[in-house]
Amino acid sequence: MHRFFLPPVAIQTDSVLFPLETAHQILRVLRLRVGDTVIVLDNLGGQYRVELTLVSSEQVRGRVIDKTLAEGEPPVHLSMYLCLTQREKFEWMLQKCTEVGAAEFTPVLSGRSLVQDKHAYENKHSRWERIIQEAAEQSGRGKIPRLNLPLDYAAAVETARTKNDICLVAWEQENTLRLPDSLQGAPSGANLALLIGPEGGLTAEEVNQAVQMGWQAVSLGPRILRMETAAVVSAALMIDWFETRAG
Amino acid sequence: MHRFFLPPVAIQTDSVLFPLETAHQILRVLRLRVGDTVIVLDNLGGQYRVELTLVSSEQVRGRVIDKTLAEGEPPVHLSMYLCLTQREKFEWMLQKCTEVGAAEFTPVLSGRSLVQDKHAYENKHSRWERIIQEAAEQSGRGKIPRLNLPLDYAAAVETARTKNDICLVAWEQENTLRLPDSLQGAPSGANLALLIGPEGGLTAEEVNQAVQMGWQAVSLGPRILRMETAAVVSAALMIDWFETRAG
Repeated sequence: MHRFFLPPVAIQTDSVLFPLETAHQILRVLRLRVGDTVIVLDNLGGQYRVELTLVSSEQVRGRVIDKTLAEGEPPVHLSMYLCLTQREKFEWMLQKCTEVGAAEFTPVLSGRSLVQDKHAYENKHSRWERIIQEAAEQSGRGKIPRLNLPLDYAAAVETARTKNDICLVAWEQENTLRLPDSLQGAPSGANLALLIGPEGGLTAEEVNQAVQMGWQAVSLGPRILRMETAAVVSAALMIDWFETRAG
Repeated sequence: MHRFFLPPVAIQTDSVLFPLETAHQILRVLRLRVGDTVIVLDNLGGQYRVELTLVSSEQVRGRVIDKTLAEGEPPVHLSMYLCLTQREKFEWMLQKCTEVGAAEFTPVLSGRSLVQDKHAYENKHSRWERIIQEAAEQSGRGKIPRLNLPLDYAAAVETARTKNDICLVAWEQENTLRLPDSLQGAPSGANLALLIGPEGGLTAEEVNQAVQMGWQAVSLGPRILRMETAAVVSAALMIDWFETRAG
């Protein structure tokens, strides 16, 4: 069933007035009709089954059948710090990590990041927000993950540390502590940060800098994963841990 | 360090004669020189540190420094049955699942597979083998995952069942049994099969057909993952389970 995040103002107690862009999509792209049912999400964790009552080029309206809690939100808040890289790969990480349950993204400029220019990023913010929203709708999330402005490495590790209970950095030179083992005893509902280095890896200095602020370096196993694989796999492992093993 | 899988004939006790294609890559692409060290893999689980002793357009030779066991092989044999889909996405799954540790791939034609023509596949076999080998070299695997010929759905679920101890099919309509929970008690060294349906999903009949042969339907959590995300995430979860939790 089609799912749409709508602004709060569009959702009344028992009726929905779809914003123009969504109305256009319903009418022209999806070609839905009066009587069809869609899912509307309020981005606060609520989801509404809505039956379309009016579908025209002027407006699209619907009637709320029922409201329930969206089921797609994981029991933890996972904030991903992703070093900037080529556009296609970065967008791919945003999409996949949204699917597996990440709650927040911060692009990071590390020493070896392939992209070093913050300006190159500016015109991408709204494009990336759209990618995240579409992935959230398709995968059945109850909230749209937040996209923050890019940070330099030092600012990123410091900011993350102040906002999260557990901060993990995936590092190919960490050989002993596997990611799931680093979560032992972590409470459900924790705030987690996960940092993924660029293709060339984080430098030992960068990892030390994070560790001295209380980050923990973790291993994703004995194989070397590409950056984008490391991102989606580590996010999935963390969220799976909290959904199947936490207290 | 650069890693190359070489045929057994290329590796003598204490010296290596690189095949033409690899020699070309070493000389022209990577521009390595006499004295540089590379890793040579025999695809049987052994890895050799090799110092280059001759680099010319006629031939490239090296001296074996030492031989050890390759560390990138997981403790289980994971055989992935991937429904055929558009080329780019399929190749992406081969690459990513090789990185996370899959040992074998079988393309499957299910009822809703986007690709239904086995002939369209024929000229891709060697291309796909190359993608797998490159991913195996880059990620530090000790063996190159095997690529089987495509099978129809019924043949795939039957073949897999005869060859594996545990057969799991990721299904978005399975709501209770999470993938890691289905592995409780599984012995290290097990042979595992994992089936990933196409974009449109497997039909209930197809899943029943597998279940009646002893497959188990498992959930990847409350979010709907795209096919390619489901493939890499479920492979990673299975291998992580055996590397960190198996008895």
